[in-house]
Formats: sequence, C-alpha cells, structure tokens
Amino acid sequence: MTATVHPLHSAAPGTPAPSLDPLVALIASDMNQVNTVILERMQSEVPLIPELAGHLIAGGGKRMRPMLTLACAKLLGYGGTRQHKLAATVEFIHTATLLHDDVVDGSGMRRGRRTANIIWGNPASVLVGDFLFSRAFELMVEDGSLRVLRILSNASAVIAEGEVAQLTAQRRIETDEERYLAIIGAKTAALFAAACRIAAVVAERDDADEEALDAYGRNLGIAFQLVDDAIDYASDGNTMGKDTGDDFRDGKVTLPVILAYARGDDVQRKFWKDAIEGRRVSDEDLAHANALLEESNAVADTLARARHYGQRAIAALGRFPDGRAKSALIEAAQFAVSRAY
Amino acid sequence: MTATVHPLHSAAPGTPAPSLDPLVALIASDMNQVNTVILERMQSEVPLIPELAGHLIAGGGKRMRPMLTLACAKLLGYGGTRQHKLAATVEFIHTATLLHDDVVDGSGMRRGRRTANIIWGNPASVLVGDFLFSRAFELMVEDGSLRVLRILSNASAVIAEGEVAQLTAQRRIETDEERYLAIIGAKTAALFAAACRIAAVVAERDDADEEALDAYGRNLGIAFQLVDDAIDYASDGNTMGKDTGDDFRDGKVTLPVILAYARGDDVQRKFWKDAIEGRRVSDEDLAHANALLEESNAVADTLARARHYGQRAIAALGRFPDGRAKSALIEAAQFAVSRAY
Repeated sequence: MTATVHPLHSAAPGTPAPSLDPLVALIASDMNQVNTVILERMQSEVPLIPELAGHLIAGGGKRMRPMLTLACAKLLGYGGTRQHKLAATVEFIHTATLLHDDVVDGSGMRRGRRTANIIWGNPASVLVGDFLFSRAFELMVEDGSLRVLRILSNASAVIAEGEVAQLTAQRRIETDEERYLAIIGAKTAALFAAACRIAAVVAERDDADEEALDAYGRNLGIAFQLVDDAIDYASDGNTMGKDTGDDFRDGKVTLPVILAYARGDDVQRKFWKDAIEGRRVSDEDLAHANALLEESNAVADTLARARHYGQRAIAALGRFPDGRAKSALIEAAQFAVSRAY
Repeated sequence: MTATVHPLHSAAPGTPAPSLDPLVALIASDMNQVNTVILERMQSEVPLIPELAGHLIAGGGKRMRPMLTLACAKLLGYGGTRQHKLAATVEFIHTATLLHDDVVDGSGMRRGRRTANIIWGNPASVLVGDFLFSRAFELMVEDGSLRVLRILSNASAVIAEGEVAQLTAQRRIETDEERYLAIIGAKTAALFAAACRIAAVVAERDDADEEALDAYGRNLGIAFQLVDDAIDYASDGNTMGKDTGDDFRDGKVTLPVILAYARGDDVQRKFWKDAIEGRRVSDEDLAHANALLEESNAVADTLARARHYGQRAIAALGRFPDGRAKSALIEAAQFAVSRAY
C-alpha cells in the first residue's frame, strides 16, 4: 500500500479545476457499448416505456455510476466485456430510483428539463420505474453472477430503506447529523459503492479489493450528496438543472440545515423549525435561510465534510497501481468536492 | 397423459360449491413456514417499512400465489424446504405490485380496509413497494437458483409492462378483447404462472413439467382476473372488500365493458364512450351501466370466458398423478370461476 497524499482541489487553489474529463475519456469506448445495451434493453412493445425511460436516460445525466463500474474494471486490468451489461444494470437501477424519487418529492425539474412525472404523470413514472428495475435484474441474470445479484439486490433494498428513512425524517428539524449521514449512506452512497464493487467481482479479485472499491464508491457517493445538498442552497436553477431551494420548500433536513439549526439562537431555531415544518416557504423565507446558512458557515462546513469523504475515497484507492484509471478516479473525487465553488 | 374431464362447478349445479379449503388445508403447515419468512424478512430498522408492509401482508389476503408455489411443489412430490423462501418471494413481489397499483389507481379500499396510500401517503407506498421488491430478489439470491431468478425477474418486467399497457388503455373505449387479454396475461397471469413454474425448478423437473405448471398458473390467473372484473360490476363493497364500480369510475376498459360496447347500439356506445372517458361517473351512471351489462349478457359472457380459462388450467394438470394436491389445484380453478355466483 502506498501512502501518497492526493490533495483535494481546495487545498491547491492554483492548479486547474478538477474535472470528470479524464474519467469520461478513460471509459469513452466502453460507454458506447453500455449505451447500446441501455438503448436495446429499455425497449418494449409498450411504446410509453421507451418514451418515458428515454426522456430521463437520454436527458443529459453524467452516467456517473456506470462510469465508475467501467473505470474500476479498467483499474483492475479487466479485459472482458461483462462490465458493459452490468454498468447498464446500474444505470437502470439508478434511473428507476430517480423516477420514483421525483414522484415521491413531487419534483418538477431535473437536469434542466421537466420531470417524467410532470409530463406523463405519477402512475406512468411509478410503473416504468418498476419496469427498469425488473429489467436490471434480468440483465444481471443474463450475466449469471449470483455475487453481483447479491450486491445489487442488497444495494437496492438499502436504497429503498434510505428513501423511506428520509421520508420519515422529512419536516423533522430534530434530525441530527448522524442520522442524516446514515440516510445518505443508504439512499445515495450504497449504489455508488455497489457500482464500484461489482467491477472487482467481474475481475475476480479478492475480498480486500472488493472492500476497497466499495469504500471508494461509498465515500465518493457521500461526498457527491453533501455537495448536492450544499448546491441546493447555493446555486441557481439554470446552472444545475435543478430547482434551487427545492430541499428547503420540501422541508428536507439536509446537513446545511442541521448545522445552521445546531448553531442558531432561539429565534433562528424557531425560524428553521417553522421552515422545515412547512410554515415558511416564500422566496423571502428562502433568502433568509440562505443568510442564516452564510452567517453560520453551514454551507462551507457541509463542503468541508464533503472534502473529508473525498479524501477517504481517494485513500481507499491506495492499494491499486498508479496509472490512468487511478488518476481519473482520484480526479473524479476531487471534482465531486470542488464543483460547488 | 390422462384425458379425464373435470367439470367446472357451473356444469354441475347440484354439487357443493367449490372452495379453496382443500388447497388451504393441503399447504397449511408449509404456509406457516412461509409466514415466518415473510414476517422475518419484511423487518427493517426503519419502522415505517414493517408497519406499512404489515398492513397489507397481514390484511386478510388469500396468499393465492404462494399457496400455488407450495401446492405445485407438493404435486411434484418435492420433499425439501426451498419452496418456503420462494413462496415468500412471490408474495413480496405481489405485495409490491399491489402497493404500487393502489398508488397508480388512487384506490382507497382493498380487502375491506383502507389502502396504505390513504393511510401513509403515496410516497411511502411507492418506496415500501420498492423495498419489498428488492427484498424479494435478496431472498431469491439466498436460494441461489439463477433459473428461479430468471423466471421471476422476467415475470416482474412483464407485470410492469402489462401495468403500463393498462394505463395506456385506460379511458380508451376502443381497447378490444385481444388487447385486453394480452394486458391481463401480463399484469395478472404472469405472476400466477411464475409462482407455479418455480415449483418445477425447485423439484428439478424437466421443461415439459415447467411448461405445464406455467400453463396451469397462467390460465388460472386469467380466470381469476376475468371474474374479478365481472365482480367489480356485480357485487357490493361489503362482500368483496373492494369498492364496487371502481373500474367504471376509473375508466378502466375491462372485458364486461368491451363486450357491452361491441354489442351496443349507437346510443349505448355513446354512453360507454362518455363513461370510459370520464364524463359519466355518477351512481346513476353506474346503475345504467349495470343495466346495459345485464341486457347484453356482458357479465355472463365474461364469466363464460373465465370458465374457458379455468378448463384450460385444469387440463394443463393432466400429466401429473392424481392425488390430494392435484384435486386441490383442480378445485382451486373451479373455485376461481364459481365465486362470482
């Protein structure tokens, strides 16, 4: 194991901003294969299925999770083709959860476009999500690895548990940081972890390699989610393709709110309680919330937490040989925590 | 293959009414094992999951599909215990689809109780459905048969396709009988077929036995669904635990409506078009619809179609040895088509 320190971007402000470009370039030709599988396997005799699924799948997502499967396979020097079908599987599971999430949250915008539930209605989004989820398992069965099936069926159950836990925490200002981290560990990081871990299964590596890739993905997923939560308060709808302030208006208790609430005086805590419980949802309320977040350093500290997980993701790669794949995965973690600036 | 003719109840009106009792008695001790698996495996650290899932799972359903897995395993003389976990799997998949169906349909009552979506809201129903579906796949992975995984992942995809197709057909009076049969073949019969078929996999039988059990389940499923559709117009909410006239008010084009529309004059066809498109939803409209269904023999002929599928289900059992299991499965098919009278 090497102990090289790979600094996150914020620690070295003079260097060029980290980006996903090396990762994208690394797996570009593999991703063409994955896209072919995705397009083929989202087809159905029922035209609404490819229409609705295509809206989201072709809708400009980064394909972060399948990229991770492909890049981890490259990191391990795997020379076969099984990763293509399995990366498509991961993207199908992710797409299914997005479709259901948008129904659950009543979201209207994602990636700068109207959500499927707005265009085709909640029923179609629920059912097409179910279809993609089932299709993901069909693809895994075709691949034939019970170990992959175990990893992804477990991740799917954990994701659903995390989503239900988040629903339970919604509008509850007393949700604390530990509980919040458990929720995002389940609803977001579990699939990142599984996407990386299955590459080790495909490459027939030992448990230690599996665990290391799992740790990379899990920490990266948490970092991504923390930054997303910060961005929801910090950016405007145009840049991120997401409605800013969505979390605020939905009464979601994310880390910025948890930190600001913990640090607030009685008046401020009353404001947060009212806001999270749905009694303060105007644009003025959102502006006041942003001012409180600024004053309490809550967004900045959320990003500091994200950098911590980014560092842990990078550290987990220590056991793997240096090279193009490792560099790209390291830069992806640096990108994850620097994109908010 | 024997060619014994097992008459359906309607053909022999003097005999006692067929019931599910022999089937229930046949598998009673196995079902205790299945219930233990169900109760254990619907648990979660997130309390809302067992609470919501338990409402539906403990809510007085017949457990028809797991009963079929157990009874088919007995029919084949299987002496192991794998069928318990797999029957629980089938029930989890079924419960997940019911939770999502009630969201999709906006249903308020099922089995005489308020639906989960009414009590806990649509978001929780969607997510707990996802959890049960994932848990079903975890159970299959524990069992370890890729063949079972293939059968049930395929059935799940077909079910979702059938549900989307039904959504597309909703409020479209031009849906014809062929299309309708394709929809119920997917959304209902696919899981009946899979529930029976996996018993042959567990008992390590050949393809012909698998196909025969699949055919039994598939035809039984279609018969059940046709009778359900007839009952929606024929019974009252108290007897069935379902809101009568739900299908009518939801603009669902089921076989009774398809037959009445096909046989109606211009005035009647206009009524059906208006009703299905949502412009006639009063109690008077429902009463008028029932009168038209009576006049055109549409409900009676739907039940005649159901008997046809019931006969085919029974015929598919021809290759299996006579005995208690076979008799119970035959009587289940007779029950399926006689319960509307």
